[in-house]
Amino acid sequence: MELKNLRLRKNEERRIKNGHLWVYSNEVDNQISPLKDFQVGELVKVVANTGKPLGVGYINPNNLLCTRLLSRDHRSTIDRSFFVHRFNIAKSLRDRVFKTPFYRAVYGESDNLPGLIVDRFGEHLVVQITTAGMEALKPSIIDALTKVFKPQSILLRNDANSRKAENLANELEQALGNTPDVLSIEENDTQFLIHPHSGQKTGWFYDHRVSRQQIAQYVQGKRVLDVFSYIGAFGIQMANASADSVWCVDISGKALDELEQNAELNKVAEKVTCIEGDAFSAMTELKQAGEKFDVVIVDPPAFIKKKKDHKQGLRAYRKVNDAAMRLLSKDGILLSASCSMHLKESELEDCLRAGSRHLDKTLQIIEQCHQGQDHPIHPAIPETRYIKGFISRVLSA
Amino acid sequence: MELKNLRLRKNEERRIKNGHLWVYSNEVDNQISPLKDFQVGELVKVVANTGKPLGVGYINPNNLLCTRLLSRDHRSTIDRSFFVHRFNIAKSLRDRVFKTPFYRAVYGESDNLPGLIVDRFGEHLVVQITTAGMEALKPSIIDALTKVFKPQSILLRNDANSRKAENLANELEQALGNTPDVLSIEENDTQFLIHPHSGQKTGWFYDHRVSRQQIAQYVQGKRVLDVFSYIGAFGIQMANASADSVWCVDISGKALDELEQNAELNKVAEKVTCIEGDAFSAMTELKQAGEKFDVVIVDPPAFIKKKKDHKQGLRAYRKVNDAAMRLLSKDGILLSASCSMHLKESELEDCLRAGSRHLDKTLQIIEQCHQGQDHPIHPAIPETRYIKGFISRVLSA
Repeated sequence: MELKNLRLRKNEERRIKNGHLWVYSNEVDNQISPLKDFQVGELVKVVANTGKPLGVGYINPNNLLCTRLLSRDHRSTIDRSFFVHRFNIAKSLRDRVFKTPFYRAVYGESDNLPGLIVDRFGEHLVVQITTAGMEALKPSIIDALTKVFKPQSILLRNDANSRKAENLANELEQALGNTPDVLSIEENDTQFLIHPHSGQKTGWFYDHRVSRQQIAQYVQGKRVLDVFSYIGAFGIQMANASADSVWCVDISGKALDELEQNAELNKVAEKVTCIEGDAFSAMTELKQAGEKFDVVIVDPPAFIKKKKDHKQGLRAYRKVNDAAMRLLSKDGILLSASCSMHLKESELEDCLRAGSRHLDKTLQIIEQCHQGQDHPIHPAIPETRYIKGFISRVLSA
Repeated sequence: MELKNLRLRKNEERRIKNGHLWVYSNEVDNQISPLKDFQVGELVKVVANTGKPLGVGYINPNNLLCTRLLSRDHRSTIDRSFFVHRFNIAKSLRDRVFKTPFYRAVYGESDNLPGLIVDRFGEHLVVQITTAGMEALKPSIIDALTKVFKPQSILLRNDANSRKAENLANELEQALGNTPDVLSIEENDTQFLIHPHSGQKTGWFYDHRVSRQQIAQYVQGKRVLDVFSYIGAFGIQMANASADSVWCVDISGKALDELEQNAELNKVAEKVTCIEGDAFSAMTELKQAGEKFDVVIVDPPAFIKKKKDHKQGLRAYRKVNDAAMRLLSKDGILLSASCSMHLKESELEDCLRAGSRHLDKTLQIIEQCHQGQDHPIHPAIPETRYIKGFISRVLSA
């Protein structure tokens, strides 16, 4: 079946030519290809104003970000074979880097699959579809995932906030087999039990895998504090990396219960202390109690969710890092991370600089943290880069 | 002996308070503390215009960058004990991260020791002093290095270009013992022979230690090209990391002779092919000969040495990376690095993006490279951050 043309206005092909995959509705030539003529989620052939074909994408005529490119080859047929090809390319990168089948298998735009996230937990896949265009292609996607990864189960965790903008329902769907309530996974030689149906996002955050390896170099025989610990991804790995003791702070009692199970699973329960509560209050109390830590890990949820929250969010990053520095023992190590897309790396760095000076300390940045290899960055799409972090040593001035 | 005050002009203490260590001559209150009254290399007490002491530094009244702070405590005595203290702090970081005594032991401003670089090659230290202030403190520095590191030898490689600006002579000086012509060192479990008297800088570049670990993940059983190989820091490590074959390009026949020795030392000589010649010509010839590589490593000397070279240098980075991408086999891996202080990370990234689009390829950034932990970054001093790099996968569009 021939796809309809989506014709861009003059010169509006530039972003696509520079590598980007998105078209905004105000870039469409509405005379020649009126948006109202397209169905939600329909596949389209994107063409420059000159008529030169740019590729195949899918459209949501109701959205400002109306079209995302799936292929730069305008002759591509978007079917099971297309997805098999794309998944194989994505898998070959992961197979090259990771020894075990626990990774983000597909990372949206960066794997040339806008609107699709797939996390692999061994024989089980957990999928997030965030656009109407990808939703329309669901049968091909499930078929292709089944062929390439041969999973026992595929669970669609279609409850991402971003689905609202695409007018998609929030729902969990068992697309293949039967995904257990609890899965056992491995990261950096540490075991975790995760909850794919009910955990945050897909149940696990693979994005800090490398940061967790990096900070593990500094914890042997040390006293570690993990703020915003969630189910212990950092904390338990630090206990496993020969930390002497690990204190974990999280506001969710349920997360901490799971963290304790994970501690037991790795036989490090006796090293781990959990504190249930708001991070800021908990850190104040630790300070008042005179507690000190050789290594403090601060990986908060996004304090800046939207651009307009920037100023307030920046203050929160400053506050939490200042509190962390106050809890460090002499020449201690601070891992400070952010997953706020709207926080620049340089802003987080400056937050640490300003905080250390405020406390009359000198800070050395000894490592920088980034999302792992299964979260590649698309150099034309800044939104694909969201994790930033620094491992610093905080010296008496 | 009481130090003379160097009084700053009103509000000019701000940079120092923000963490920086430098004072420019136009920030000095020349009425109260005329620069002409100071000796080259003299220690001074830096004070704000209000009279508030800011710390102790050394001065070169003939330079625009006239003073660098050694301590924020204005009561500090800058003597052997001071340097012993500073060296111990620097050493404790390296001891925490590295299992073997091969590292940059002191990295100037980032270790609160402006003007001093010390590379440790086991029992031998190679030192670079780049300012008149540090030159004047040489006896204390040598004494303190001897006490803290207990080296067999200390060689002063005082031939850095930056000495000219301080009107210091270029000279090699044997400050302790007798440094052999050839030293044996280890990096990432690979052995190298280096030439501390005659090699570039101190004879070795520790700064890419982590990048070399990172790229080693991708080379097993692969065909690797190392452009600007020098004595084989990347290339030999890739051969050691189970690369199938490694081709090394360098313009210096002498460097390639040493590279071959290093290959033999690690028993990987049969895997290594050397090409003597200009990188651009060599890559063109490889392309014409139809050669392809699974992994290409491009770590050129600084193409942008001064700000005014920026435009031309950027073109050179673009050209060398385009050439590298043309030599990649399908879905190949490119490590592209830069040590130009005046090249922004985002500029290198954009170079890769533009180059890949020009060749109708799609580039995924899978890792970012930074200087290793023995080259910490001072968050207030951008000049301390100079290495940047990306490991990318280059896909057919």
